[in-house]
Amino acid sequence: MMQEEIVHYLKNLRDTIIQGFESFEPTCRFERKPWDHAQGGGGEISILRGEVFEKAAVNWSGVRGDQIPFNDDAGPFFATGVSLITHMSNPKAPTVHMNVRFIQTQNKWWFGGGYDLTPMGFPFDEDTEHFHRVAKKALGEELYAIFSENARTYFTIKHWNKERGVGGIFFDYYNTGDFAKDLALWKTVGSTFLDAILPIYKKRTLAPFTEEDKKKQNALRAHYVEFNLLYDRGTKFGFQSGGNPEAILCSMPPTATW
Amino acid sequence: MMQEEIVHYLKNLRDTIIQGFESFEPTCRFERKPWDHAQGGGGEISILRGEVFEKAAVNWSGVRGDQIPFNDDAGPFFATGVSLITHMSNPKAPTVHMNVRFIQTQNKWWFGGGYDLTPMGFPFDEDTEHFHRVAKKALGEELYAIFSENARTYFTIKHWNKERGVGGIFFDYYNTGDFAKDLALWKTVGSTFLDAILPIYKKRTLAPFTEEDKKKQNALRAHYVEFNLLYDRGTKFGFQSGGNPEAILCSMPPTATW
Repeated sequence: MMQEEIVHYLKNLRDTIIQGFESFEPTCRFERKPWDHAQGGGGEISILRGEVFEKAAVNWSGVRGDQIPFNDDAGPFFATGVSLITHMSNPKAPTVHMNVRFIQTQNKWWFGGGYDLTPMGFPFDEDTEHFHRVAKKALGEELYAIFSENARTYFTIKHWNKERGVGGIFFDYYNTGDFAKDLALWKTVGSTFLDAILPIYKKRTLAPFTEEDKKKQNALRAHYVEFNLLYDRGTKFGFQSGGNPEAILCSMPPTATW
Repeated sequence: MMQEEIVHYLKNLRDTIIQGFESFEPTCRFERKPWDHAQGGGGEISILRGEVFEKAAVNWSGVRGDQIPFNDDAGPFFATGVSLITHMSNPKAPTVHMNVRFIQTQNKWWFGGGYDLTPMGFPFDEDTEHFHRVAKKALGEELYAIFSENARTYFTIKHWNKERGVGGIFFDYYNTGDFAKDLALWKTVGSTFLDAILPIYKKRTLAPFTEEDKKKQNALRAHYVEFNLLYDRGTKFGFQSGGNPEAILCSMPPTATW
């Protein structure tokens, strides 16, 4: 019952976000592709390769397995979430990543997620401030302080000794013991995401840019690839829980250069 | 003394290979960039971005450290090797990878290395056969059987359930107890590498190709990136031993698409 409600929320969230993104595209639309998980359940990748969104991927999944990776809680688990990423045609428009997930094992449940912003060579202070302002308003001062610090730590590219982007919020293993309250907080993250990103896209997606700007974007996309394959917990979790490689790798940029 | 001789051999090998590759390039030449290792020693990256070699990287390194990663032999170590990779302008010409390395800890020493071939969308049986024939002649039937099986196992992209390319030879922790004999075998690997690859490049680098062929190449280069960042032991070893990220990542293709 709880799982059903959450899956219902996630699928609605997915649809709302897709509509929000598609409103920027003159003609291109997301294409959906369902997939099955080896041990049970599955998901749906939605991919847009458009004019404004060079590539955007929104992935819903709800999978079951015998043993959750990276966790000492033995036995079957259920994991469901929405994960998305954008790679913009215009280098002045930042990449954004959002994820909300709910995981239940035999004895535990927890929420996780967040959203974070990665300018690809062209950071604008006002965009960063807007993005963080929405997150702070959504979470309140106290949680925002913790979750934004989490993001700073988590979204670090260790070998380049730098943050992946300009941060955002990130949380995992979130369970205060009050399911209804935690669920509400988690939903707030999902439901404020479009407020955080769409005003930025309104401002940046029509800005002029040069071939040089595009090269800069492609070089930074390479760092994004490195982060996702070397450090990202979601990617590791996906591969180790027998996930669909196409779904796991749909976050990769359309192009990258080294 | 032993270390000096090996370093001398490696630097010569590096120079010979660079000359071999440059003989294909009308005007472009490798550029060298020395780097220091945090704990001692360092290396030299040589990179060519040419007409025939869209990107070729030959990296020599000789580093010292306090504790070797992935090994229970405690205490300081010395690791030296040459590692190279090519990413060709012409998609009909395959990517090749070669590595020879020597590692010494307080109580042990061993050799490792090999070479392997990765067509980027256009495999030619006669090229594969030539490449393996050179390796088999260099190693003898018996070792070739073992080392080529190693390559088949090692160069597997697990999540795509396929081999990275068409194989070659791979060995690690090689120590029969006879240093002189092992050194000689190891040198044979280095010194036969150009025989294995150059005839293939003579045949393929001038072949006609289309934009579609280039797209195919770029899509397969993405799999190469995935292998290197998710599975490659050298990459992991590099990052975990505090290596230079620029040197570790110089194997990445000039472009990749997802």
